[in-house]
Amino acid sequence: MSKGRLYIVSGPSGSGKDTILKEVFQKCPEIFFSISSISRPMRPGEVEGEKYHFISKDEFLKLIDDDMLLEYNQFCGNYYGSPKQPVLDALNCGRDALLEVDVNGAAQVRKVMPEAVSIFIMPPSYAELHRRLSGRGTETEEVIGARMKTALQEIGRACEYDYIVVNDVLSEAVDDLIGIIRSQRFKTERQINIINEVLKNA
Amino acid sequence: MSKGRLYIVSGPSGSGKDTILKEVFQKCPEIFFSISSISRPMRPGEVEGEKYHFISKDEFLKLIDDDMLLEYNQFCGNYYGSPKQPVLDALNCGRDALLEVDVNGAAQVRKVMPEAVSIFIMPPSYAELHRRLSGRGTETEEVIGARMKTALQEIGRACEYDYIVVNDVLSEAVDDLIGIIRSQRFKTERQINIINEVLKNA
Repeated sequence: MSKGRLYIVSGPSGSGKDTILKEVFQKCPEIFFSISSISRPMRPGEVEGEKYHFISKDEFLKLIDDDMLLEYNQFCGNYYGSPKQPVLDALNCGRDALLEVDVNGAAQVRKVMPEAVSIFIMPPSYAELHRRLSGRGTETEEVIGARMKTALQEIGRACEYDYIVVNDVLSEAVDDLIGIIRSQRFKTERQINIINEVLKNA
Repeated sequence: MSKGRLYIVSGPSGSGKDTILKEVFQKCPEIFFSISSISRPMRPGEVEGEKYHFISKDEFLKLIDDDMLLEYNQFCGNYYGSPKQPVLDALNCGRDALLEVDVNGAAQVRKVMPEAVSIFIMPPSYAELHRRLSGRGTETEEVIGARMKTALQEIGRACEYDYIVVNDVLSEAVDDLIGIIRSQRFKTERQINIINEVLKNA
């Protein structure tokens, strides 16, 4: 059995990444979705183990010390990171695994797992990004401007990724992302078994 | 506009390659299918320009001399080859192009266009290959054995390809091949325009 492949997915706020990944998760239960560990307290409505594992800051620092994370970041005093072992276990079992990380996290993962395939989700245009980040029209131009700046900085690093999926029509973006993952399964290095199988009787 | 991508598709007799490509051709009219030039006379039922351009041996030799072919082979005294210019024209217009060639032709094309993506179509098993090559049961074991030998020699070179599609269920193999081609369109080097488009307003 060949090993699974690791997918790194990033996309700025306004790319619709979360909605896309939710659908991919439902349509492709064979893919292992990594759950981040996070050192901040649980918020109302959040469920342990759904999107995050909630741990203490000390526990997080121990994960860093023990090299148990594929990547991590600090944001507003809290730590976020992707536990390494569950991903490696999935890959070793032949399962594809998917990590949702930001551009810095993606760069860290690429260093330790250069064979990972990275995908960046893009909004279709500047105007549409602005529309999405404006929310329900209740935000000040200053808040929107700050969100735009962050999103555009991330988009500026899209070229570090292997693939770029443009999220104009949601269902198409979902199919595009699934198509990229499925097509990787036909890569020759993952089909060696079938070649050997056909040839061994020859 | 980014350039199109060249796909090289091979598969032994018994892989079902021709049937697959016929369906891909119908489903994906945006792909340019290269028509081979061939120096043998037209057979009953064949139509000029459908699967082949029929030209004289002298004309073929001139194509070789003028470096007008992406690849060529000689088989039973006849020349077969893929004209270069129509493929380059398609790629320059942003169209994907597809070449159906044998393993030797594929190796030749890779040398001159290393960016080409190559796909090998496989039968699902030795037993199924034997069944398909046995035809309607009217062939001698000697004929079948010779066909098997040729097919297995080609399969032995499958690892030279980027992707391997197993043709067990025809419709799935067609979707798999189309999926590989479509997913390549999301490669970052082909999405630079959209990145620039979004960023230029920033």
